[in-house]
Amino acid sequence: MSVAKVIEISAESPEGFEAAIRNGMKQASKTVENIKGAWISEQKLKIENGQIAAYRVDMRVTFVLQ
Amino acid sequence: MSVAKVIEISAESPEGFEAAIRNGMKQASKTVENIKGAWISEQKLKIENGQIAAYRVDMRVTFVLQ
Amino acid sequence: MSVAKVIEISAESPEGFEAAIRNGMKQASKTVENIKGAWISEQKLKIENGQIAAYRVDMRVTFVLQ
Amino acid sequence: MSVAKVIEISAESPEGFEAAIRNGMKQASKTVENIKGAWISEQKLKIENGQIAAYRVDMRVTFVLQ
Amino acid sequence: MSVAKVIEISAESPEGFEAAIRNGMKQASKTVENIKGAWISEQKLKIENGQIAAYRVDMRVTFVLQ
Amino acid sequence: MSVAKVIEISAESPEGFEAAIRNGMKQASKTVENIKGAWISEQKLKIENGQIAAYRVDMRVTFVLQ
Amino acid sequence: MSVAKVIEISAESPEGFEAAIRNGMKQASKTVENIKGAWISEQKLKIENGQIAAYRVDMRVTFVLQ
Amino acid sequence: MSVAKVIEISAESPEGFEAAIRNGMKQASKTVENIKGAWISEQKLKIENGQIAAYRVDMRVTFVLQ
Amino acid sequence: MSVAKVIEISAESPEGFEAAIRNGMKQASKTVENIKGAWISEQKLKIENGQIAAYRVDMRVTFVLQ
Amino acid sequence: MSVAKVIEISAESPEGFEAAIRNGMKQASKTVENIKGAWISEQKLKIENGQIAAYRVDMRVTFVLQ
Amino acid sequence: MSVAKVIEISAESPEGFEAAIRNGMKQASKTVENIKGAWISEQKLKIENGQIAAYRVDMRVTFVLQ
Amino acid sequence: MSVAKVIEISAESPEGFEAAIRNGMKQASKTVENIKGAWISEQKLKIENGQIAAYRVDMRVTFVLQ
Repeated sequence: MSVAKVIEISAESPEGFEAAIRNGMKQASKTVENIKGAWISEQKLKIENGQIAAYRVDMRVTFVLQ
Repeated sequence: MSVAKVIEISAESPEGFEAAIRNGMKQASKTVENIKGAWISEQKLKIENGQIAAYRVDMRVTFVLQ
Repeated sequence: MSVAKVIEISAESPEGFEAAIRNGMKQASKTVENIKGAWISEQKLKIENGQIAAYRVDMRVTFVLQ
Repeated sequence: MSVAKVIEISAESPEGFEAAIRNGMKQASKTVENIKGAWISEQKLKIENGQIAAYRVDMRVTFVLQ
Repeated sequence: MSVAKVIEISAESPEGFEAAIRNGMKQASKTVENIKGAWISEQKLKIENGQIAAYRVDMRVTFVLQ
Repeated sequence: MSVAKVIEISAESPEGFEAAIRNGMKQASKTVENIKGAWISEQKLKIENGQIAAYRVDMRVTFVLQ
Repeated sequence: MSVAKVIEISAESPEGFEAAIRNGMKQASKTVENIKGAWISEQKLKIENGQIAAYRVDMRVTFVLQ
Repeated sequence: MSVAKVIEISAESPEGFEAAIRNGMKQASKTVENIKGAWISEQKLKIENGQIAAYRVDMRVTFVLQ
Repeated sequence: MSVAKVIEISAESPEGFEAAIRNGMKQASKTVENIKGAWISEQKLKIENGQIAAYRVDMRVTFVLQ
Repeated sequence: MSVAKVIEISAESPEGFEAAIRNGMKQASKTVENIKGAWISEQKLKIENGQIAAYRVDMRVTFVLQ
Repeated sequence: MSVAKVIEISAESPEGFEAAIRNGMKQASKTVENIKGAWISEQKLKIENGQIAAYRVDMRVTFVLQ
Repeated sequence: MSVAKVIEISAESPEGFEAAIRNGMKQASKTVENIKGAWISEQKLKIENGQIAAYRVDMRVTFVLQ
């Protein structure tokens, strides 16, 4: 028997989408144990003065309940 | 670096959709800090004896993790 | 045992979305009994001469079969 | 023969969704003529200090090409 | 006034989808009170050596906030 | 030449999803003739006191017009 | 005040999609008055012996309630 | 390097869907240069007195920015 | 490094959805090796004389390329 | 017991959508036996020098495994 | 009061998705002022001779009307 | 006349999404000729011990039938 739970997080970074993903996963693993996986549900850009100020990624994170 | 989390709530009111939204946001802000925004995912009606008994709103609420 | 049926209606009003919803529910309850609920599937505007001439709401209405 | 074009706008107001819709339609009708209709694609809230700071509506606006 | 919250869980069982659903609901009711309902968002199979090793169900579970 | 019509029903049973489906089809065949098929659009659970009180199935039922 | 209802029909013809549409509209207008419009939700083919035996169209038909 | 833009148009004709498409493309190519392609997002019918008065097609048109 | 491929199958049985799933998986594992999993994309019923003649399941089956 | 498989093809023709469909079905029936049906998932246009150069249709084709 | 407009662009680069995104944003900011953000709606690859010839990104770009 | 076929693959890499994409395209081009393009349908992460163990990409790959 196995039960998992899904939370939804949104993370950003000025460097790129994969840096935003690593930020989000680092933060998620501080409050939640046994993360199994994640999937990307949205990728966005924040623009300031015509420049990309931040890359933002919405993720659904799955972790196992013990 | 910024990480946000999303929860999903469902609120209702006999008065209308915007009253239901205000109910839901008041309740959400009691248990969660740093709410940044919300978006409406569904609007429903509960009918009793041919009358609108309640307006119900499903919302996804975003708040910043500190 | 319980069986419900769903019909789809579309109602409009010059006053606003909730007035359109009340129009639709009033009309639906004339021809159908035992309505339990409804959910809003679309909200539209009809524009004439740059003014909002009507607010239109598409709803899916659920009623119990006896 | 009739050809219409669709643009997508996003409008907000501190008062409510229908006020945001009227703001958006007023602004759209300044730059575009012959608007026929619009439909609501998303409804959002901007929250500041636990209060609803703005109601935001994304709309797709249809106008006739002449 | 009524406010509900939605969580998303994923449960599995070697016996079938309804056994997986019962596993998930049992586990969810240990950590969350006042569950009102749930809906099935996805049904999957885990295959090992050409055999169905597990039936997996993703569910969205609704419970009332008090 | 062949024309079919689609209705949407929702049925429930305390025993399981397939029992709910059979309830719905029995009820549908009392008021509608020449049913050709159906497809499952949603599967839900009604929970009372932490127990599954009912399995609910939303179906779209197709029947031939004569 | 204006209220419309939507039904869903499915029609086919061996000649092509527009012939199937005309069949469906003819049949629908026999049982329902005041049809305002329709939109195509699906287009399918029935194949027999490697040949297209029928073109099938699923339509949602809107008519005004009086 | 290549950048394209997408606009959304809606065209109609009393003759059929492909005539509506040709109308839309003719009109679009008067105001926009370098159209590369289009895809059909919706097909609708306008009905008057039980007759098909117009075939309407919603299209998303892609053109290259120079 | 790991690469998987997805095929889509549709299976039916007169006994129920899980019997249809087992039929489909048995048949799929005859022509394809290294199946890892599957997910259910649609559940349908075939009706004859008011009785459920077959339960049909559409599945997407994933297998590892070697 | 019956098991079917689904493949996805994309066909085009300079003449129109139904000609593209016939092209695709002819080609599919050369490599695959026992085709039962197909459904249209997308309709596109290829434009060259402001003219419709090709009508393209994406189809999902179902055939029975023996 | 605030009103924003959304346009849809498609950009490509031989180097990768983020290079394509930067190309698209550079081009968009030449013709449109006050860009606030963008979100990625599709990511595609153009293949030539078995090699990735271009990475293509479809984006929806939001800018404020003044 | 031109007919293309679509297959769906899933590839992963410990390095990042674009490395996973290149793995998948290399593997696909070994068994299939005349690949024209691909589009990304899902991006996932496999997590082990709180670390990103693999980046996974689901792709739909299009190739021309000859």
